[in-house]
Amino acid sequence: MSSPKYSVFFGCLVDTPSLNELRIRTNGALGVDQTTGRIIGIGDDVTDSSTGSAEALVASWTGSQASVKGDVQVTVLSSDQFLLPGLIDTHTHAPQFAFLGIGHDLPLMDWLEKYTFKHESSFKDIELARNFYSGAINRVISNGVTFAAYYGTIHVESNRILADTIRKAGQRAFVGKVCMDVNSPSYYSESTAESIAGTEQFVKAVLGDQGNESGARLVTPIVTPRFAPTCSMESLRGLGDVARRYQLPVQSHLCENPSEVAFVKQLFPDCTSYADVYHRAGLLGKRSIMAHCVHMGAEDIRLLRESGACVSHCPTSNFALGSGIADVRRLMNNGIPVGLGTDVGGGYTPSILDAMRMAAAANRALIAGRRDRGEILEGRDGVPLEAGEAVFLATQGGARVMGMADQLGSLDSGKLFDAIVVDLNVPLSPVPAVSSTPAVKCLEDHPDEAWRVRLEQFVFLADDRNITRVYVNGNLIHAKQT
Amino acid sequence: MSSPKYSVFFGCLVDTPSLNELRIRTNGALGVDQTTGRIIGIGDDVTDSSTGSAEALVASWTGSQASVKGDVQVTVLSSDQFLLPGLIDTHTHAPQFAFLGIGHDLPLMDWLEKYTFKHESSFKDIELARNFYSGAINRVISNGVTFAAYYGTIHVESNRILADTIRKAGQRAFVGKVCMDVNSPSYYSESTAESIAGTEQFVKAVLGDQGNESGARLVTPIVTPRFAPTCSMESLRGLGDVARRYQLPVQSHLCENPSEVAFVKQLFPDCTSYADVYHRAGLLGKRSIMAHCVHMGAEDIRLLRESGACVSHCPTSNFALGSGIADVRRLMNNGIPVGLGTDVGGGYTPSILDAMRMAAAANRALIAGRRDRGEILEGRDGVPLEAGEAVFLATQGGARVMGMADQLGSLDSGKLFDAIVVDLNVPLSPVPAVSSTPAVKCLEDHPDEAWRVRLEQFVFLADDRNITRVYVNGNLIHAKQT
Ligand SMILES: [Zn+2]
Ligand SMILES: [Zn+2]
Repeated sequence: MSSPKYSVFFGCLVDTPSLNELRIRTNGALGVDQTTGRIIGIGDDVTDSSTGSAEALVASWTGSQASVKGDVQVTVLSSDQFLLPGLIDTHTHAPQFAFLGIGHDLPLMDWLEKYTFKHESSFKDIELARNFYSGAINRVISNGVTFAAYYGTIHVESNRILADTIRKAGQRAFVGKVCMDVNSPSYYSESTAESIAGTEQFVKAVLGDQGNESGARLVTPIVTPRFAPTCSMESLRGLGDVARRYQLPVQSHLCENPSEVAFVKQLFPDCTSYADVYHRAGLLGKRSIMAHCVHMGAEDIRLLRESGACVSHCPTSNFALGSGIADVRRLMNNGIPVGLGTDVGGGYTPSILDAMRMAAAANRALIAGRRDRGEILEGRDGVPLEAGEAVFLATQGGARVMGMADQLGSLDSGKLFDAIVVDLNVPLSPVPAVSSTPAVKCLEDHPDEAWRVRLEQFVFLADDRNITRVYVNGNLIHAKQT
Repeated sequence: MSSPKYSVFFGCLVDTPSLNELRIRTNGALGVDQTTGRIIGIGDDVTDSSTGSAEALVASWTGSQASVKGDVQVTVLSSDQFLLPGLIDTHTHAPQFAFLGIGHDLPLMDWLEKYTFKHESSFKDIELARNFYSGAINRVISNGVTFAAYYGTIHVESNRILADTIRKAGQRAFVGKVCMDVNSPSYYSESTAESIAGTEQFVKAVLGDQGNESGARLVTPIVTPRFAPTCSMESLRGLGDVARRYQLPVQSHLCENPSEVAFVKQLFPDCTSYADVYHRAGLLGKRSIMAHCVHMGAEDIRLLRESGACVSHCPTSNFALGSGIADVRRLMNNGIPVGLGTDVGGGYTPSILDAMRMAAAANRALIAGRRDRGEILEGRDGVPLEAGEAVFLATQGGARVMGMADQLGSLDSGKLFDAIVVDLNVPLSPVPAVSSTPAVKCLEDHPDEAWRVRLEQFVFLADDRNITRVYVNGNLIHAKQT
């Protein structure tokens, strides 16, 4: 028996089509075409969750009554579950899971020397990569991440193994071969030619490895100069050229730490700002993802705004390495798209939920500091980041940063079905049951309000235990053991 | 058969006798006298973990060979487990578990109005208290908290139920009847006389309820004026008098939020600082626990230092309510003892591990901000809070704040055995196995170094899943379901 051609989910649907729009469809229905992996229709207020009702809905969405019957798989969510767009990690380093949670007493440059370069260099060993990466990727997926932008190492073959591992796990990803041809330790460096040719070799391999998969492509190569301090202008220009020729996304680090910013100024005296280094190399555009952006000058902001480049906000990492606090509101007020990143291992956890909480903490600390210094904060600048906004940054905001805002990030008809099932009532859950949270219980007569506060509990309390199913391209790629 | 008179644990012992002393005894042995609940001896480098070896150790510690044989229970920890002093929460509100994780878009004063006062007032209903508190206390204990300072509500009877619940659960605690006689909503307020007489009534009841328990007393009443804005000077003085007559600890809030500080200045124009309000009422002394202390003037610092009062640092709450960042190093440099508090529900989680991480984040953000403003940081002021220091704040530092530094907080002979067993290798653990963390694996030949980095992973990654057993007074009060 072949698997059903359609899936229909009945239950609460939660998403954030825009920063200030938290959409809660308490009695929702959502249909997926399993062949295309796309959402084919949404019902707003559906009370009948029978198979018959599901078939009728699919027929109305597809307009083809006959072919539907017996071909619909029905999933009815419990009253503690909801469907949320898959979480998007716009910045993480797969090899750095080798030292997860370790070394957070060091600032950026020392930490790179002591942990990062040393461990990344060991991925020259292909067998090590093969043994290591699947555990790391499983850890990311079990945190509800359906789509991640990964840095690998400088090694082409190990990076191919990383891309393979991700594709086999069914996750959507950008994967980049890290490039670093200057100011790098002798045991972990490459020539300018190796940076550029290695990137092109990796790009071709990944594009070639895709085969003729159904549904949207899972793994896309991303051009990845580590960051300006370890890349010559020649390599940056060469990488910009590869990105243009293959029409690929680009990722790098920008303005993370004051010493790093000062070092870049010294290395590139002709450039008007740190961002200008990437700009001159042709690396700044609508498909560029710049991680951190903590210490941004007006010129950095202007270049990002004008080029359309995007920002990966990595608050857990920024706190852990003492980098400072990125001003996300300022970036967004300048029309710069912002998503969330875990930045493992600068960040200690692959949990995007943790990134949401840390984004809230960072934003509140920034507001409090400004008020203390007598600044007047206008409009939303003085309003703490709300739970719904944190969800936006991790879903639709992340999709925008990844250049796929029209393809995923919200639960809308026509989009790819990358989603998670959240369950707020699992054994030993960090989220207390409704019965032991009177503030939620007393809202039972107002389901929308009750879900709004439950979503707050999800953002501030939940962890991987509450993420019970993970779907990418309509396929179930992870289910919690029960 | 009666239970054994002694217990001996074999395995890794971790504790922090002082802020800068992380003590790791890889092959440790620790003996407990189950009658007194106290540690009777520690072995530093013990490789034989047989029952015979345990009996010999107990005999050497007690000097009584004959009575030991057959009376020792042996626990051998696995290579992924270690024994740590119990975690201490120096500031939390039991009734506020009613809205755990909810309302973090509001600043302090609005949040009190909308959530806190409303929910606390419902504890007038004794049955509600009876049904509610045991779930809240279990949640605290499952996070490894062996000793907590709780605020209850204004209601004497419900607070007795809270104290009973804690005692039955076997946790060590300070429990306070909240006092608020001015500037409080009509539905949740009391007269000055009720504040003082109610406190005395509650104190007598709790002291009387203790019976003739063996071992150290579990529940101690604590004098608890909510905070200066909701207490008249007359009530504060009356409460100071109760604390003095019964020789009790005192807890309150101090300098949490700028509007609160301004309000106190307006309410008590004769006082030289916020801390001076408590000082004049006789509430500031060696057994006083002041929560938050974010916006401290020089006079506040001086009064704390001179009176010997202690601080409960609640970083999760400070971030969540946008209160600002407390300067813990400045407080400690002034000789003021500091511990950690979760401040549920201003903080969204009863996890002291989360408080450790947030303390690290707060400290790093403070350092980064100062560096950005060109300040020169001397000595340890510029050194990020290390994992061992975070553990200190949650154990020995907390014990000092609770006035019991000589009784618990470290694994030393003569101290009460309040401890937890941490397991870094449990199913679905947020801490990756050693085999998938090469940075730890490559240290296997250096057990002390390996444990040092494993402790970092504990501080930055672990959660309640990793806390598998909780002991108070030598008794096992919680064991993780396996
Ligand atoms: Zn990074
Ligand atoms: Zn409090």
